[in-house]
Amino acid sequence: MHNKTLTRADIEALEKMQRTRLINCLSGYKSANLIGTRDEQGNENVSVVSSVIHMGSNPPLLGFIVRPRKVERHTLDNILSTGSFTINAIALDFAQQAHQTSARYPKEVSEFNAAGLTPHYEDNISAPFVLESPLKMALELREHIIINSNDTEMVIGEVVHVSLPEQAIMPDGYVDLEALDLVTISGLDSYHVTQRVHRLSYAKPNKALFPLTKEGEPSSWRVLAPD
Amino acid sequence: MHNKTLTRADIEALEKMQRTRLINCLSGYKSANLIGTRDEQGNENVSVVSSVIHMGSNPPLLGFIVRPRKVERHTLDNILSTGSFTINAIALDFAQQAHQTSARYPKEVSEFNAAGLTPHYEDNISAPFVLESPLKMALELREHIIINSNDTEMVIGEVVHVSLPEQAIMPDGYVDLEALDLVTISGLDSYHVTQRVHRLSYAKPNKALFPLTKEGEPSSWRVLAPD
Repeated sequence: MHNKTLTRADIEALEKMQRTRLINCLSGYKSANLIGTRDEQGNENVSVVSSVIHMGSNPPLLGFIVRPRKVERHTLDNILSTGSFTINAIALDFAQQAHQTSARYPKEVSEFNAAGLTPHYEDNISAPFVLESPLKMALELREHIIINSNDTEMVIGEVVHVSLPEQAIMPDGYVDLEALDLVTISGLDSYHVTQRVHRLSYAKPNKALFPLTKEGEPSSWRVLAPD
Repeated sequence: MHNKTLTRADIEALEKMQRTRLINCLSGYKSANLIGTRDEQGNENVSVVSSVIHMGSNPPLLGFIVRPRKVERHTLDNILSTGSFTINAIALDFAQQAHQTSARYPKEVSEFNAAGLTPHYEDNISAPFVLESPLKMALELREHIIINSNDTEMVIGEVVHVSLPEQAIMPDGYVDLEALDLVTISGLDSYHVTQRVHRLSYAKPNKALFPLTKEGEPSSWRVLAPD
């Protein structure tokens, strides 16, 4: 295959939307989540976000990036004023509804209604969950960081509630995201399903890796293979 | 399916590695990249990282999280002292070698040698690329952020060089990551390939979404479908 090399000048010279689409693909596959919030008047907001990342396990922290754009400020404003938000994993059967929440609705319009998603509440948690999601989390705001390089902002929250089908939790703690039919995003608009190749054993110097089943056991095809 | 709900107390009560595995799955699918660096003495380092995210397109910025752990400090130290690093997407055919770089090697050992990967250099870029990767980027350090909530750190760099097969770049700028056989990671150790469901049109209020081909054209199955 013929290789293409882009220098900084080549990237700058790209047409604006072409550059945006290309750069948005470079990080690789992205998580697909809906963030649910509510303002102090009770107006609900839900927004598709592809930048949620793991920040740490103890305490359990997740973070995401807020772009300096109008439509997404509702989410940030609500989190800063209430301290509460939900993260709801996107499954294949409502990925189109989830994508529709990226349209720029006025603040008084609930994206739940506009996109055909169902708000769901749990005791002691003020932000709305997305009922359709098989993996729902509630978070409390822990940190808000301004990124000076491009005026984006990072929100970090602590997970205080997790709800998911019990069968998806493997004995060693691993969660089988494929059992939940979760999708992954590439670029701005491409949705993908996945197929597990294998889990891999914990890497140590001078020790060969071996494949694991989704339950975290040494893979049987390896046990059966000749030495 | 029976649902399991975990409160903050339930999460705290989990056995340490079980909690780490579970929390690492909650954000969803993660990007799979190798970060290449070199110290001022020329010692090479390469490390698998699943936290690379898109930070912005103009300027083109990517960021990633560095855990407060010994092995990964080599990467951070090298970036802070040289200002240069590479991000190399992980494809299926060298995912095991990539995973092996997560073993805790001493600083004088090159993970390239230990894991069986090939360092590759380009003019005017001091950090090593991973020759095996089909999508190679060089970045210049732009920002270094300490995250107070858990003493992790975030590194943000500007993309100054991109190399990939020309056929993977669609006319509208979208990059077909599946054509490159890139993998995605869930949890600490699970590797997955993907299958595109569709791209989706730009969402607007009061306008129905429609599926797009990977080239960004309206999908023909929809054109052929009855109204």
